[in-house]
Amino acid sequence: MLGILTIGTELLTGFIDDTNSSWLGRELTTAGLSPKIKISVSDGVADIVKAIESFPDDVTDLIITGGLGPTHDDITLKSISDYLGIELEFDQQYWEFLRERFRRRGREIPEINRNQALVAADQDIIPNPVGSARGTIFKSGKRRIFLLPGVPDEMKAMFTASVLPLLSTASEDMQVKIIRTTGIWESVLAEKLAAILERYQDIQVAFLPRMIGVDIRLISSDTARIEALKLALVNKCGPYFYGFDETGLEEVVGERLVEKGLTIATAESCTGGLISHRLTETPGSSRYHLGSVVAYSNAVKMKQLGVNQDTLATHGAVSEATALEMAGGVRQALGADVGIATTGIAGPDGGTAEKPVGTVYIGYDDGDTRRANRYQFHFNRYWNKRISSQVALNMIRLELENA
Amino acid sequence: MLGILTIGTELLTGFIDDTNSSWLGRELTTAGLSPKIKISVSDGVADIVKAIESFPDDVTDLIITGGLGPTHDDITLKSISDYLGIELEFDQQYWEFLRERFRRRGREIPEINRNQALVAADQDIIPNPVGSARGTIFKSGKRRIFLLPGVPDEMKAMFTASVLPLLSTASEDMQVKIIRTTGIWESVLAEKLAAILERYQDIQVAFLPRMIGVDIRLISSDTARIEALKLALVNKCGPYFYGFDETGLEEVVGERLVEKGLTIATAESCTGGLISHRLTETPGSSRYHLGSVVAYSNAVKMKQLGVNQDTLATHGAVSEATALEMAGGVRQALGADVGIATTGIAGPDGGTAEKPVGTVYIGYDDGDTRRANRYQFHFNRYWNKRISSQVALNMIRLELENA
Repeated sequence: MLGILTIGTELLTGFIDDTNSSWLGRELTTAGLSPKIKISVSDGVADIVKAIESFPDDVTDLIITGGLGPTHDDITLKSISDYLGIELEFDQQYWEFLRERFRRRGREIPEINRNQALVAADQDIIPNPVGSARGTIFKSGKRRIFLLPGVPDEMKAMFTASVLPLLSTASEDMQVKIIRTTGIWESVLAEKLAAILERYQDIQVAFLPRMIGVDIRLISSDTARIEALKLALVNKCGPYFYGFDETGLEEVVGERLVEKGLTIATAESCTGGLISHRLTETPGSSRYHLGSVVAYSNAVKMKQLGVNQDTLATHGAVSEATALEMAGGVRQALGADVGIATTGIAGPDGGTAEKPVGTVYIGYDDGDTRRANRYQFHFNRYWNKRISSQVALNMIRLELENA
Repeated sequence: MLGILTIGTELLTGFIDDTNSSWLGRELTTAGLSPKIKISVSDGVADIVKAIESFPDDVTDLIITGGLGPTHDDITLKSISDYLGIELEFDQQYWEFLRERFRRRGREIPEINRNQALVAADQDIIPNPVGSARGTIFKSGKRRIFLLPGVPDEMKAMFTASVLPLLSTASEDMQVKIIRTTGIWESVLAEKLAAILERYQDIQVAFLPRMIGVDIRLISSDTARIEALKLALVNKCGPYFYGFDETGLEEVVGERLVEKGLTIATAESCTGGLISHRLTETPGSSRYHLGSVVAYSNAVKMKQLGVNQDTLATHGAVSEATALEMAGGVRQALGADVGIATTGIAGPDGGTAEKPVGTVYIGYDDGDTRRANRYQFHFNRYWNKRISSQVALNMIRLELENA
C-alpha cells in the first residue's frame, strides 16, 4: 500500500498549496497505484518522525517530498537518517560538481548549499536531472521510503525517471477518464445522469464541482465498461459536455476554429485580457488567434473598436448594444472571422440597482450570427472575471458546434 | 492541539487541489492556532474512520471538510455518526426550506438533495449561510469534531462564523508577516540575509520559493521583534523586495501608477493578454489601466501598434526593435503615459538556434525612458508566459520607483 508524506510548515500554515501531492496522486492513480493516505507535517524533526510512525504498517511504499533545499528550514534528510540510525556522509565529488555548475553561470556557490552534498550511508541515491538536491531511497524493514525534494520540477523529473519504475509492479492498470461539463449545476447534472450511473455500479464515479464547471471522473480497470459508460454520459450530457481529461475549454474552442478554418479576436472589458490569455495557453494558437483589444476605458472602446459615442451615452458601456459593437468592432479592426466581446461590472465597486456587480454582457459576431447575452453572476471580482471568460468561450464553442 | 482531515478520493488521486486546508491553515495560524497535522483520505467509510483514529490523542480539536454534498460519493456525515454511534434524523423543516429555495430560482429540488436534510441526533448544527449543506459539531470524549462541507465558499463562511469563535481561546496571537521578493534565487537571497537571520533566532523564518519569486515568512508572537526583523530584511533585500503578505506585483505596480498619476497600456505578443489580465485583477484598476492590444499576428502589430514592416522584416517579430516599437505604439494608440510590450517565443515550437524557445524581449516606454531587455527563460509555455508577465510588471515597478 502506498502513502504520501509532504513536509513543510508552509503546507500546514497554508501559505503554499500542496500541488506536489496532487501531481503525485494523478501519476500514481493513472499507474494503478492509488495512494491510500496522505499526511502533511511541519518541518520539525519530532513532527517528521511522528508522522512517519503514524502511517499504517501496511504502507510499504512511502513517498516523502520537501525539505531538501539549501536553506536552514530544510532538515528532512537529517531527521529520517537519525530516525533510522543511518550516518550522513559528505560527498566531496558532488560538492565539486555543484561548485562547477554555479561557476558556469558566473556565480560562486553559497556555502549554504553544502547541505546538498550530504548523503545517507549505504542507501541508494536518486539523481536530480534538473536541480542540485538529490533524493534517497531508504530501506526500513518491509518499507521503502522515497525521499524527494519539494521543488516541483525537480520532484517530478526524479519521480518519473527513478521512482515510478520501481513502484510499477501493479497487477492491473487503472483507466481514469474525466468528462468535463460546463453550464449546469452539480445536483441537476447528477440527477440527469442518475439512471445511467445505476447501471454502472462497478465503476468508481465521482462528481468534481468547480466554479467553472463540473467534472465527472470515472475509474475502472475494465476498458470496455469504462468506454461504454463514457459514451452514455457524453450522449446524455448533450451541449454541457465539452471535453475529456485535462482538456480546457480554450483548447476545444481552438480545435473548432481550426476545423472550420476560422480566425478569432477578442474585445475585452471586464475580463481584462483573460480570454485572450486563455486562448494563447494552447500551443499553436497563433494559427487562429489574431489578438485582442482590451478596452478598459471608453476612449479605447471608441477609438480601437469603433463603438459609437451615442451607444455609450444612450445604453452605457455595460449594455447589449455596446457588447455587440465591440464584437463587431474587433472583428473588423483585426480582420478576424469571429469576434467575441465582454463588458460588465466585475466589482467590488461600480454596481447600480439596475446593473449590480456581476452584470456581464457577452457579445458574439461571426458575420452571420450576431448576438449578445446578459448574465448575472453572484461572485467576487476574481470569480466574476473567470466565470465570464468561461461563459464567453462556451458561447463560441456552442456557436461553432451548431453552425 | 489542532488537526485537519480533508476527505475526498479526488484529493488523493490529485484531480483537485486541496485549497480548503491551505485556507484553514492560514486562518488558524493567524489566530495563533497552528495546525500540527493534516491528513487526507478517500471517501470510503473505512478509510474515514481509520484516518480519524490515526490522529494523535492530543488532537482535541479536529476540523473535517468534504463529503457533505448531494451526490452519491458524499458519505462523511454517515461515516462519522456510525463510528460514534449516533443516529441520523431527517429534518423535515429544513427539507421544506431547501425546496422553497430551489423554487425561488425556478427549479424543482432534486430528490438527491434529501441527504442534506439529515442531522446527527443531539449534536450541534453549524448553519450554512451560503449553500444547502449544514455542518455538525460532534463531541467525542475530550475531542470536538467540526464537520464542514467541501465547497470552499460554504466552508469558509461557516468556519469564520461558527467554528473559529469556539476555537479562539489561544493564549497569544501569532503575528505572521510575509516579505515578497522577485528576481533573485532562493540560495543567493538566503546567503544575503544570513547574517541578519542569525540575530533573530527567536523568530520562525521560512523561505518559500516560487517560480515567480521567493517569499520569506516570519512568525512570532513578539510584535516588536517581528517588526524589527521585517525592516532589516526589507532594507537588505533592496530592489528585490516588492511587497508584504498577499500583495501581488500587479497591485504594487497599480499603487506606483496612482501615486504618480500615470496611466498604462500593454502591447502583448507572447504573454497573450496575461499582463493586462493581472493588472485588472486589482479593484479600481480602471483608474490607471486603459487597456491593451494583444498582437499575436504581425498584421495586428503593424495595424494596431504601428510597428514598421521594415522592422519586422529586418529584425523579426521577436527583437529589441519590435519590442520598443510595440511599447511606444500602444502608448500612442491608447493615449497612455506608460507602454509595456512583450514579444517572444513561448514554445513549444517556433524556436531557432539564434532565438530558442524562451527568448523574450520586454519593452518599456514612458516618453522619457525607452528600453528593451532580452531574457532567456528555460521553461515550458505555461511558465514562460507567467515569468514573462512577472518580469514585465517588475520592470515597470523598478522604472517607476527609480524615476
